[in-house]
Amino acid sequence: MNLVLLEHSDFIDSDRVRLEGRRLTHILQVHRAVKGDTLRVGLVDGKTGKGIIEQIDSVALEMVVSLDSDPLASLPARLILALPRPKVLNRTVAAAASMGIREIDLINAWRVEKSYWESPRLSDGNLRLQSILGLEQGGDTLLPSIRLHRLFTPFVREQLPQQLKGHLALLASPGAHADPPRKVTEPVVLAIGPEGGFIDREVETFRDIGFTEVSLGPRILRVETAVAFLVGRLF
Amino acid sequence: MNLVLLEHSDFIDSDRVRLEGRRLTHILQVHRAVKGDTLRVGLVDGKTGKGIIEQIDSVALEMVVSLDSDPLASLPARLILALPRPKVLNRTVAAAASMGIREIDLINAWRVEKSYWESPRLSDGNLRLQSILGLEQGGDTLLPSIRLHRLFTPFVREQLPQQLKGHLALLASPGAHADPPRKVTEPVVLAIGPEGGFIDREVETFRDIGFTEVSLGPRILRVETAVAFLVGRLF
Repeated sequence: MNLVLLEHSDFIDSDRVRLEGRRLTHILQVHRAVKGDTLRVGLVDGKTGKGIIEQIDSVALEMVVSLDSDPLASLPARLILALPRPKVLNRTVAAAASMGIREIDLINAWRVEKSYWESPRLSDGNLRLQSILGLEQGGDTLLPSIRLHRLFTPFVREQLPQQLKGHLALLASPGAHADPPRKVTEPVVLAIGPEGGFIDREVETFRDIGFTEVSLGPRILRVETAVAFLVGRLF
Repeated sequence: MNLVLLEHSDFIDSDRVRLEGRRLTHILQVHRAVKGDTLRVGLVDGKTGKGIIEQIDSVALEMVVSLDSDPLASLPARLILALPRPKVLNRTVAAAASMGIREIDLINAWRVEKSYWESPRLSDGNLRLQSILGLEQGGDTLLPSIRLHRLFTPFVREQLPQQLKGHLALLASPGAHADPPRKVTEPVVLAIGPEGGFIDREVETFRDIGFTEVSLGPRILRVETAVAFLVGRLF
């Protein structure tokens, strides 16, 4: 936790917060913070700053906070991910949030197991928690917007094309030979398939609407590894 | 599992293997393979090829295998990692192996919790299993060599310098301003600190022996995210 992310509901006065639960446990056990210590803090979707601990015990922590810095600039990247298996989903959302990605579309694909769509990890609450864990890691405050699309074609064929204007649209594809570009200057929309890849018909749909297939090399990477690899490569 | 990694002990004849346990379960539940199916296989530290399932049930699987392709070329990168917390260690070793990294040194640092060194996840057996999971993901066979260094100074000051010749030595450092280089042509030694970073004295030691500090951007990334980000950036 490189930044303690605060919610509006944590405020007990205009400049004072009270924390219990997960964040308190982390601050006690990992930071080993004591009264008088200063922590880096930020308000969800708001500014960052400092908090000085005025009181801390096993029940609660109170800090006086000052929030005076703007949040970090977003990474100009939007992710279109075939819904990963639930465990991988959590790590991928957190990793994406930690790198400053603010737009994530989780889509269906032929090789996405139907049962993944029933996972409780797709709840708003869990997706928000994973995003917060990523922001706390990265030191950031702006929550990604995460959208679910249970039908591939209506989203990819009908909605996505009009959202691609001015963007570089790349599809990570194990079959591709082209290297992903380096140091891009335009915002990127990045599509990554399920384990086993998008099927040919899905790849063709992406191609039809303007995506370029790029290779991540001869190895097949897990989705959260692929996202970080591509962020390192592209920006 | 994009490749079923075989051990010498799996062979019951010169071209026939029998699998039980983890791999069988995965092949049944995820691949949903049946008799006659062909799977991509590889021998640990050896060649890759195909296996044709001759018999499969809930107890065991038998395949006739032919191994005729050389393994993928290693990534010319060696990792020097401050020992991460055990859960993160597993994911980092698997991610590194999946990307073709063959040399990993796990080192102590001031901000590495002493208890991490007592983790059962540091056993040869677990490090080998995590490496295998990464190779099965990446479709590769060459196990990384993973070394433990419980003392920072003797390793970094005395052993490491003579191993840096001909290498680009980079230290990922939250304080740095320099961008990591792109598309490098020499092999790289990449040092990544613990949560909270290397302390100043440790950073100076790396600098003294020839490491250049590079920034991963304004955000602080988890070690497994940082490794993938840097691999994408450098190669």
